[in-house]
Amino acid sequence: MRDQHYTGRQRHYMEEALFEADQAALIGEVPIGAVIVHDNQIVGRGHNLREHGNDATMHAEVRAIEEACGTLKSWRLEDCQLYVTIEPCLMCSGAIINSRIPEVFYGARDPKAGAVDSLYETLTDSRLNHTVTVHEGLLAKDAGERMVQFFRAARVRQKARKKARRAAAQAGPSRK
Amino acid sequence: MRDQHYTGRQRHYMEEALFEADQAALIGEVPIGAVIVHDNQIVGRGHNLREHGNDATMHAEVRAIEEACGTLKSWRLEDCQLYVTIEPCLMCSGAIINSRIPEVFYGARDPKAGAVDSLYETLTDSRLNHTVTVHEGLLAKDAGERMVQFFRAARVRQKARKKARRAAAQAGPSRK
Repeated sequence: MRDQHYTGRQRHYMEEALFEADQAALIGEVPIGAVIVHDNQIVGRGHNLREHGNDATMHAEVRAIEEACGTLKSWRLEDCQLYVTIEPCLMCSGAIINSRIPEVFYGARDPKAGAVDSLYETLTDSRLNHTVTVHEGLLAKDAGERMVQFFRAARVRQKARKKARRAAAQAGPSRK
Repeated sequence: MRDQHYTGRQRHYMEEALFEADQAALIGEVPIGAVIVHDNQIVGRGHNLREHGNDATMHAEVRAIEEACGTLKSWRLEDCQLYVTIEPCLMCSGAIINSRIPEVFYGARDPKAGAVDSLYETLTDSRLNHTVTVHEGLLAKDAGERMVQFFRAARVRQKARKKARRAAAQAGPSRK
C-alpha cells in the first residue's frame, strides 16, 4: 500500500518507530525501531540494542513488547498495534504471536531474515493459535534507506580497517 | 534417540532443565524449563514465567539465553548447548538462531506450536544465516508427563470454578 493510503495517525506512529531506528543508528546499532500503540497512546517503544546490551534478544520489537507488557500490566497486548520499520524476524514474529498483538504495520521487507512475508508467513499462519493483520510498506523508503546507509558505512569502515592492517603489516614489526 | 544413547552429562543437564520446569509448575506456570551449557558449566537457566512476569516473551529459552548472554558478556553463544524440556516455539527458535547457539537438545514435541520439527523446521533452515544441530527426545517422557499433569489439573480447576458459578446462580441473588 502506498504511504498516502495510510492515515496521518498511522504515518505518525511509523515516524516514531523511525525515530527509534535513528536512536539505534546513533550508537552504531542496526537501525530498526518499533512502537506499540494502545488507545491512540504509545505504550511501548524500542530499538535494536544487541551490541550494547550484549544480548541477542534485544531487537526493537521485543523491547517494545516488553515495555508495553509492563505499561499495561498484562502479557496480552490484545488491543494494540505494533509499528516496526523493518519486517520482523522469526524471534520477533513469534513474540508478536505470543503477545497476541492483532495488527502489525511494517516498513521495508527483510529478504534475508523476514518471517512475515519474505522467508515465512508466520503472522498469517492459521495453524497457530493467533493470527495477525499485516500492513506492509508504510514509510518503507525511509526505513530501507536507513538500512542501506548503515551497511554502506559499515563496509567503508571495514575496508579502512583492512587497509590499515595491510599498511601496518607492510611496514614490518614495530621497533618498540 | 532413546535416553540411554545420550551421555550421563547430557541427561544431567536435561534433569536441570526439568528442575526449572518444576519451578514453573510450583507457581502455576506452564512447566517448561531450559539451561544453557558452556564448557561443561551451566551459564544460563530459566523457566516459563509469562503469568507472574506479565510478559509474553518470558519463555524458558529466552530467559536462559538472556542470562547466558549476561554471564558470558556476549550476544553470541557460539560454544553453547541449550537443553529445553519442550520443543521451542517460533519466538524461542528465533532467539536460538539470533544468539548463534549451535546445538539444541529438547525433550517432548509441541504439536501445536513447535517450530523445530512440528509446524516448522526453523533451526535447520539453510536459508537462514545460522543452522543448529538438533537432538530430540532426551527425557521426553518426563517432560511430557509434566505438561499432561499440568493441563489436567488446570482443566479440573476450571470445571470446579464453572460448577461453583452454576451453583451460585441457582441459589439466586445474595440477601446482602
